[in-house]
Amino acid sequence: MSMINAYAAGADERLSADERALIERRARVLGPSYRLFYEHPVHIVRGEGVWLYGPGGEAYLDVYNNVAVTGHCHPHVVAAIAKQAGILNTHTRYLNETVVAFAERLVGKLPAEVSQVMFTCTGSEANDLALRVARTHTGGAGVIVTETAYHGVTQAIAELSPSLGKGVPLGANVRTVPAPRSSGDVGKDFAEGVRAALADMERAGIKPAALLVDTVFSSDGVFCEPKGFLAEAVEAARAAGALFIADEVQAGYARLGEAFFGFQRHGLVPDLVTMGKPMGAGHPLAAVAGRPEVLEKFGRTSRYFNTFGGNPVSCAAGMAVLDVIEGESLMQNALKVGRAMRAEIGALGGAIKEVRGAGLFIGVEMADAESAASVVNGMRERRVLISATGPGANVLKIRPPLVFGMDHAGLFLDALRAELALL
Amino acid sequence: MSMINAYAAGADERLSADERALIERRARVLGPSYRLFYEHPVHIVRGEGVWLYGPGGEAYLDVYNNVAVTGHCHPHVVAAIAKQAGILNTHTRYLNETVVAFAERLVGKLPAEVSQVMFTCTGSEANDLALRVARTHTGGAGVIVTETAYHGVTQAIAELSPSLGKGVPLGANVRTVPAPRSSGDVGKDFAEGVRAALADMERAGIKPAALLVDTVFSSDGVFCEPKGFLAEAVEAARAAGALFIADEVQAGYARLGEAFFGFQRHGLVPDLVTMGKPMGAGHPLAAVAGRPEVLEKFGRTSRYFNTFGGNPVSCAAGMAVLDVIEGESLMQNALKVGRAMRAEIGALGGAIKEVRGAGLFIGVEMADAESAASVVNGMRERRVLISATGPGANVLKIRPPLVFGMDHAGLFLDALRAELALL
Repeated sequence: MSMINAYAAGADERLSADERALIERRARVLGPSYRLFYEHPVHIVRGEGVWLYGPGGEAYLDVYNNVAVTGHCHPHVVAAIAKQAGILNTHTRYLNETVVAFAERLVGKLPAEVSQVMFTCTGSEANDLALRVARTHTGGAGVIVTETAYHGVTQAIAELSPSLGKGVPLGANVRTVPAPRSSGDVGKDFAEGVRAALADMERAGIKPAALLVDTVFSSDGVFCEPKGFLAEAVEAARAAGALFIADEVQAGYARLGEAFFGFQRHGLVPDLVTMGKPMGAGHPLAAVAGRPEVLEKFGRTSRYFNTFGGNPVSCAAGMAVLDVIEGESLMQNALKVGRAMRAEIGALGGAIKEVRGAGLFIGVEMADAESAASVVNGMRERRVLISATGPGANVLKIRPPLVFGMDHAGLFLDALRAELALL
Repeated sequence: MSMINAYAAGADERLSADERALIERRARVLGPSYRLFYEHPVHIVRGEGVWLYGPGGEAYLDVYNNVAVTGHCHPHVVAAIAKQAGILNTHTRYLNETVVAFAERLVGKLPAEVSQVMFTCTGSEANDLALRVARTHTGGAGVIVTETAYHGVTQAIAELSPSLGKGVPLGANVRTVPAPRSSGDVGKDFAEGVRAALADMERAGIKPAALLVDTVFSSDGVFCEPKGFLAEAVEAARAAGALFIADEVQAGYARLGEAFFGFQRHGLVPDLVTMGKPMGAGHPLAAVAGRPEVLEKFGRTSRYFNTFGGNPVSCAAGMAVLDVIEGESLMQNALKVGRAMRAEIGALGGAIKEVRGAGLFIGVEMADAESAASVVNGMRERRVLISATGPGANVLKIRPPLVFGMDHAGLFLDALRAELALL
């Protein structure tokens, strides 16, 4: 099992004695799946805005963490959590205004047809629930995903997350399609893959349930242009009876600058929308939104309850995050800063093959995994945090909190430029 | 699909105009799976200790909510969450003391053999992960659960949760066994069922992966006596190559009074232990603990990462809950108050067939579902909150926060006595 940008135990001499001791305790008591980032792991004790701080007060510029969408420890979000935690934190089987008000506000961000929402605690749970709903509604079992897709870690969702590697076999009802490319007729080519997968399912007697895509194709290496290219594939899937599930766990929540959700850039109205990571800025909060006619049968036939999902504290966190995104115009900021960053990165040339993305979700394709790893680890030594992604591990993943300003972009570019010069 | 103690839309005239309006908004915007408790739903706006409060300040005695183990809105837990949320809330791929320290403290509550822990956000995720680990370790797929078991709502776990009803088919690799009874040779009879299920799996060519049991058998109707009865079934399962997974999501965390976890009452050392609900007193926090040799292959072959699992705020909540359980001697309180309650309930006679349970997890078997529903809804009108469980929906489920004192027990008993007199 390999993980991009993982620390190899015992490999780095730059760690302090305290850090070595902490890593040893960690390895002893946490399960063996726990991995640290970077050749030289980063020890973090505090966060504020786009900055993370080490035990000696050293400041790291966070150009990676999409969860902290409002910036680390945003006072408005912290205050909302603290306040509601002191008032009430219980489940949704008592009447309470909070979950209804938050659901209404969230639905207001979605197309009119997608008018109902169910809360979970993680994106994995959201995708797992969406899959159950899609299979119940369609009566099918087949799911189409991209070749290096990541949708989560429950058993059912791990079976359709090929990026987890060969140690996690795909399900018998799963078919993969090539990720979008960045040249040629992107929409037609992607749809061609989907049509081939549907034909293959038909031949195998598998009734399709869903086309499930991360609308920014992050683990495939970040593909989101041209706007609208997804439409033809979605049309093909629907013609075969499958639903379109937009996985917005990474793409959604204002990050792409041009729209609140990634599917909106493609002019689509999904049957189900899943979301998670940034929703509570770190508080475990996720959701599935859907068309009522799609949710109907599941609601009628399958008892479902998520003990913590939609609790008042989670909803207060979710409300506060939306307050900040709207109040601080973070979508507009993502659009402006992201556009400037992509232009400046593209002008750096050198080992950079291609710059992709939208808003503050940027993928920078390098020649190979080695140069990407060199840049990622070199920038970490300059205290600028990014990572890498893609099937070849050669795409720099640049995805800062949305309060990332032009000044922060300048610091990031200085570090990137210096590392590129060393290649 | 039926749910015990569910509100039937439009059925109650005692709701205020505001409450009716809120229920309508709720039905419009939340998915159709959302259900309210009671014929006359309860509107809650605030919680403190064992009390929940309605919008007019009316106080409900909470004799139901196990999640709020330390009492609603315990100031120590609220302060810990508020403090850590203002310092740092990020994932576990940076070095940080919090997750390690919490894991060490949690492992200290477990047998020495069960020395590693992995954090998730919900009990469903914990059981789903435990299942993946068990299947990876054993190479088997078969799982044995009880006839009315509930283990969660991910697709893989719903397939082995028969209490969800016939709308959710069991998996092809799942076998159910009769729940323990409260008479006869409980251990031998239960083990007999497990041996029969193993034989049936063998005949079907299914290699067993796990015997998965809620150690208080809550959805089966609450069965936990005599202590030790589980051992023979576990021995049989292990002899066939299956692991023993103790689902402590409901039973664990001091509730049973005699031990921190339910399996400890049976003198067992599980291969995997799952826990959730009370861990963060409402904050979404759950975990799988396991023997290192059982976790090893999964860690090596299957990339696993839970974005929110084990984040510093969740760990701070988890630490604070343990502080309160220990500092306020809540396990001892559960033992004392639970024992007194069971004795007094047993002395009430009348429609009560049997009183079962341990500590503050009490099941009271009534003649039928109608009398149980009558008591549950009648007590709700007296502002005392309980519910019902079991395959016949005829077992009163009594499971208050562990700060429930003798004075609260007296209030509960007064209400129960009054409702029994009306049957």
